[in-house]
Amino acid sequence: MAQQHLDPTDPTAEVVTGDALAAYLRTQATEFLRALRLHRETGGAGGGAAARDRSSARENGAQESVDAAQALRRSARRVSGSLHTFRPLLDPDWSEEMRPELAWLSGTLGLEHAYEARLERLLLALHRLSGATAFPGQATSLDVAAGASITAVVASPTPERGNLTVGAAKAGALLERQLTLARTRAHSTALQALGSSRFHAVADKVAVLASEVPLTLTAPTTDLRPLAAAAEERLTAAITGLPLVTAGLPYNAEALVHGLSPDPSPHPQDGPWHQVRLLLRLHRYAREVLHAGNSPVDVRLLAAGQALNRHRDASEAAAAAAQAARTPRIAPATAYALGVLHADQRHEVEASRFVFQQAWQKQTVSAS
Amino acid sequence: MAQQHLDPTDPTAEVVTGDALAAYLRTQATEFLRALRLHRETGGAGGGAAARDRSSARENGAQESVDAAQALRRSARRVSGSLHTFRPLLDPDWSEEMRPELAWLSGTLGLEHAYEARLERLLLALHRLSGATAFPGQATSLDVAAGASITAVVASPTPERGNLTVGAAKAGALLERQLTLARTRAHSTALQALGSSRFHAVADKVAVLASEVPLTLTAPTTDLRPLAAAAEERLTAAITGLPLVTAGLPYNAEALVHGLSPDPSPHPQDGPWHQVRLLLRLHRYAREVLHAGNSPVDVRLLAAGQALNRHRDASEAAAAAAQAARTPRIAPATAYALGVLHADQRHEVEASRFVFQQAWQKQTVSAS
Repeated sequence: MAQQHLDPTDPTAEVVTGDALAAYLRTQATEFLRALRLHRETGGAGGGAAARDRSSARENGAQESVDAAQALRRSARRVSGSLHTFRPLLDPDWSEEMRPELAWLSGTLGLEHAYEARLERLLLALHRLSGATAFPGQATSLDVAAGASITAVVASPTPERGNLTVGAAKAGALLERQLTLARTRAHSTALQALGSSRFHAVADKVAVLASEVPLTLTAPTTDLRPLAAAAEERLTAAITGLPLVTAGLPYNAEALVHGLSPDPSPHPQDGPWHQVRLLLRLHRYAREVLHAGNSPVDVRLLAAGQALNRHRDASEAAAAAAQAARTPRIAPATAYALGVLHADQRHEVEASRFVFQQAWQKQTVSAS
Repeated sequence: MAQQHLDPTDPTAEVVTGDALAAYLRTQATEFLRALRLHRETGGAGGGAAARDRSSARENGAQESVDAAQALRRSARRVSGSLHTFRPLLDPDWSEEMRPELAWLSGTLGLEHAYEARLERLLLALHRLSGATAFPGQATSLDVAAGASITAVVASPTPERGNLTVGAAKAGALLERQLTLARTRAHSTALQALGSSRFHAVADKVAVLASEVPLTLTAPTTDLRPLAAAAEERLTAAITGLPLVTAGLPYNAEALVHGLSPDPSPHPQDGPWHQVRLLLRLHRYAREVLHAGNSPVDVRLLAAGQALNRHRDASEAAAAAAQAARTPRIAPATAYALGVLHADQRHEVEASRFVFQQAWQKQTVSAS
């Protein structure tokens, strides 16, 4: 299967065996343990505490704690992804026990950040839609992409509010209330998870993995490339199933087609794109394994992945706006602003698909 | 000025004089009188009456009456536009008296159709946003563009309503109420106008124009082309002022920038585009004069004009949705649907600008 991809200038043209997988998993396990130690040292305060207590020392600690949680997730996703892609080379019982635990951990730790980013995205959009200037200190979307904290925005919204209509201001306040509550709950859940015996069991297993990878007997001499190629093929097949022709036509108005649908799960059309996002990530991790963690940056793969992240974020933000509009007894002006906001985020969904299509098209052309 | 455009294969390369202008004005005046006669024969019932009384004979008469009113406006616009572009060749007192009267007539007669088309556009959008199928008998946008009557939709909304959320259905009913009222008023105003002494004075002048065009003494031998070229230059200059670079970037999110602005006149950004639409029309009429009414179809000019019409329609539909959302005591679900609808139409505005930019770019490239 990998034969057809052989290219003498390609480092992966040399056989890469299960030993490389073991090295990669050991590295990721070590990163996991380092992040965990950092998280414990910084007190695991997290963003929730930062929003409540803004003293500078606590804030630094909170930021480090958030970074540590992200690093934990980063390693957990890589271990989990490699277990999936290279399953035949690993002890099946161990793999099957490990993967759901890593998924649980990654999901639990990710929620707080997701709510924070969603609120930030929606508040930025409300200001953009009001023709207001960007937040001070958050002037560019680059800042936002770099993970700038929203704490300052949440804590001092007054000056910017002046530029909003009553509806936009109320919609912002409603979203802030709902998503801050969700974030605070996610923070508590994450703290509880990190103190649970379930987590300690995972951490113990990762500690073992850092020194001893449960490869099968034949794995150390088995070529990894066919399994990596299979991961890439799953990605390619899923992309073939996407409506890329439509996505490549600007302003196809597809993403908002069910914007007012009575269907309670209004956007099943997003599912295949979310799936491709996950498969793209697995493909990226498989490349990391083959290149011993030093895979050359593939700009187009990066662009495609970023477009799919934006697609996911906008899709979830649109759903949050629609959800907020179902709050009982809100003012019509608030509901109107949430409607505009919902449509705006669905438009972002459509724009992301267009960007993905463009990025992917380039890749196919240059590869042929 | 026109010297630089000389091209031996171009029919306009031959001198076209004021005589051609006189012939064009006589033709348009004759068309005006024919439409007026038809309008009187069909009783001037119009769409408003058709919505109230749907007996087949009355409906045919109403449709003919609507067609006649459109033909009246068509000629009035052409006479008015030619008076403007070729002003120096015509008796100035007569021109200055005639133009505002033609503008008044065209505006008054156009309102009823505009409200009808706006309601149709908004109801179609509500159904599209609900993932519902198109109206029976109005399956394609071609039908809509061809001016299919909305009467059937307005009179029998029940089967389609089944697919709408409560909010979308209520928003549709609210828009229907408000725009039908506006249309009925416009219909009465148009009927009153057509019976007024002011109108009879215009009609008398047009009757004179059909046989006797008040050219200046030198006009019959004056070349029309420099004046036509000046009209084209005014168009080109106005287009140069448009933000075409932004418009050419798909999903630039520019049209919704003031979607929630507290500014009561929320879309000053549309103004320059509306202005280009009018200048494009004047350019088109000037071409008709030069080619004695047989100007070859310029596909790109046509595409650019259609994009600007759609831009205007979407802009006004978006404003109507925003206006409806300000109705006191509406339900939050209604307001939410109107917010989604407003944003959807602003996306149409943005999409129209993109289409215009593409059409215009092609023209520039092929002309160079």
